[in-house]
Amino acid sequence: MKLIADNIRITKPDIRDALKFNNPEPVGRLARQCAACAPWAIDVNTGPLTRNPEEGMRFFVKSVRKHTDLPLLIDTSNPAAMRTGVELAGKNAVINGFSLESRKIDQILPLAKEFDADIVGFLLFPDSTVPQDAAQRYEVAIQLVQALEKNGIKKERLIIDPVIPPLEWENGIEQARDVLEVIRLLPDVLGFEVRTIGGISNLATRALSPAKKKRMTRIYLAMLAQAGLTYALLDIFDEELVKTAVTADILRNETLFTWEMVPE
Amino acid sequence: MKLIADNIRITKPDIRDALKFNNPEPVGRLARQCAACAPWAIDVNTGPLTRNPEEGMRFFVKSVRKHTDLPLLIDTSNPAAMRTGVELAGKNAVINGFSLESRKIDQILPLAKEFDADIVGFLLFPDSTVPQDAAQRYEVAIQLVQALEKNGIKKERLIIDPVIPPLEWENGIEQARDVLEVIRLLPDVLGFEVRTIGGISNLATRALSPAKKKRMTRIYLAMLAQAGLTYALLDIFDEELVKTAVTADILRNETLFTWEMVPE
Repeated sequence: MKLIADNIRITKPDIRDALKFNNPEPVGRLARQCAACAPWAIDVNTGPLTRNPEEGMRFFVKSVRKHTDLPLLIDTSNPAAMRTGVELAGKNAVINGFSLESRKIDQILPLAKEFDADIVGFLLFPDSTVPQDAAQRYEVAIQLVQALEKNGIKKERLIIDPVIPPLEWENGIEQARDVLEVIRLLPDVLGFEVRTIGGISNLATRALSPAKKKRMTRIYLAMLAQAGLTYALLDIFDEELVKTAVTADILRNETLFTWEMVPE
Repeated sequence: MKLIADNIRITKPDIRDALKFNNPEPVGRLARQCAACAPWAIDVNTGPLTRNPEEGMRFFVKSVRKHTDLPLLIDTSNPAAMRTGVELAGKNAVINGFSLESRKIDQILPLAKEFDADIVGFLLFPDSTVPQDAAQRYEVAIQLVQALEKNGIKKERLIIDPVIPPLEWENGIEQARDVLEVIRLLPDVLGFEVRTIGGISNLATRALSPAKKKRMTRIYLAMLAQAGLTYALLDIFDEELVKTAVTADILRNETLFTWEMVPE
């Protein structure tokens, strides 16, 4: 599992204020702190940036790029912001992401071809609702692959996000199980070694205590590792969670084992 | 996952001394403490009891039974001790266990029929060596089922122990992965809902620190839960490990979820 910091999000008040007052320092500081944890990449979640999409995205990417050359996931639903973000972030940018929603197929998906970039595809219906079982998720996955191919984009550019649900959703726990199965079986269903990405931070947002939240998140992350998840989006500052990811990965990947590999 | 306390073991010096001096109190105290943690069952690991198998086993089972009516796994390789243990423990005794070793097929397996008891079968070759891959494990599993049927015992009496390896073993980490796969696929391979049991306490015995040991054990336990393990043998006094089992089980089994279910 490659780890992606999900810490830079516009939903945080200080990040929202940083944009509002055009102050790059809070974003830059967060980027430095993320980079210091040596993730594989950093997700830059700017939200839709409805008012000034290009300017807003420029602010974010420049603020982050000043401090790190790590791959950046440009995380917005706004096509104009996406274009600016991918262009500014450079060749290790990842488009995060598109779905079967026609606006996204028309305006975001082609950017993967134009910038020769990896692109995240969400397992969501065209109206952005969530599939209700694994079978529906496979259907959507097949349609995502077809959408790439129709646009002349190699299917290997696709990274599938099966959408980890908050457990409190109706059927949340069944969906969480389906997601594990989907991650395990997608390469067989699609016939190639498709990569998968999952954001773990929303699984337990409404837990009744930090202890419950942390335990549930760690356990599910271990299960995701076992299922074969390629990229885990997580709070890179949560040391025990990162150690869980590293340890679970040893169980998944290594052939020669020594206890030195395991985080203290 | 049903939890089985593995805390009563003759390898512990105070338990060995209790037998030596015919002092039931240390064994009884441990049984009370285990029962207070409300496991599904308690494993009574007496070792082979080479000198006085029947007397030794009688000491153990009586010392434990005085304090709890929980199911007991009679955990010995000695057929005479096994007979005494299963007889004394009563109708919720489980034979733990037999393998393809001829002495065990001849002398331990028939006790499952005689006492109409569940029996654990180890995925080991007749010479007690460990299979080197999943395919070999499936072959052994099929032979265990055949051994039950030859002895006129319903195959549903079988609980398969795929033998969780210490990670330091040569190929230990690959075997740990094979065990997860075997647990997941055995019901399909055998064509019935075979139950499985795994002892987690030996996975990380030689870890370089308690932190590494605990983290590795918890993560692997979560993976075992996801793979579908029926019975987990573990240190029932390890509160965080038990909470991990309970939480992982919610992810595996529940349909309606509330945060109240998750241990604090």
